[in-house]
Amino acid sequence: MCEANVYLLDKNGKETLVLDSVDKVIPDKDEIILENIYNERKTVRARIKEMELVEHRIILESID
Amino acid sequence: MCEANVYLLDKNGKETLVLDSVDKVIPDKDEIILENIYNERKTVRARIKEMELVEHRIILESID
Repeated sequence: MCEANVYLLDKNGKETLVLDSVDKVIPDKDEIILENIYNERKTVRARIKEMELVEHRIILESID
Repeated sequence: MCEANVYLLDKNGKETLVLDSVDKVIPDKDEIILENIYNERKTVRARIKEMELVEHRIILESID
């Protein structure tokens, strides 16, 4: 399966796991809607900083 | 491998393949920088509309 783990990067450069096994990622204005393969949903006030799909990593950064 | 195919959605709802086997996706202002597992790079003036990682699909939409 090709889901990814989504991390939030804070201003000190620390990454915190937001949601694992994410399938769907939908940006919406200042938010990112995440949905994983277990049908868990989270909405994060952030933007996408970068994605490394082969590494199963998506990095978000907070919006002030 | 968990790379994705990146499609650009036009105003008529038609999807065009931009780059296949994409590993890295880096949004940068009004652009999206794509890099695939063959080290091909493309920069597209677009924003991310949605991603379905299990389906290996990333949909971009053009910025006017």
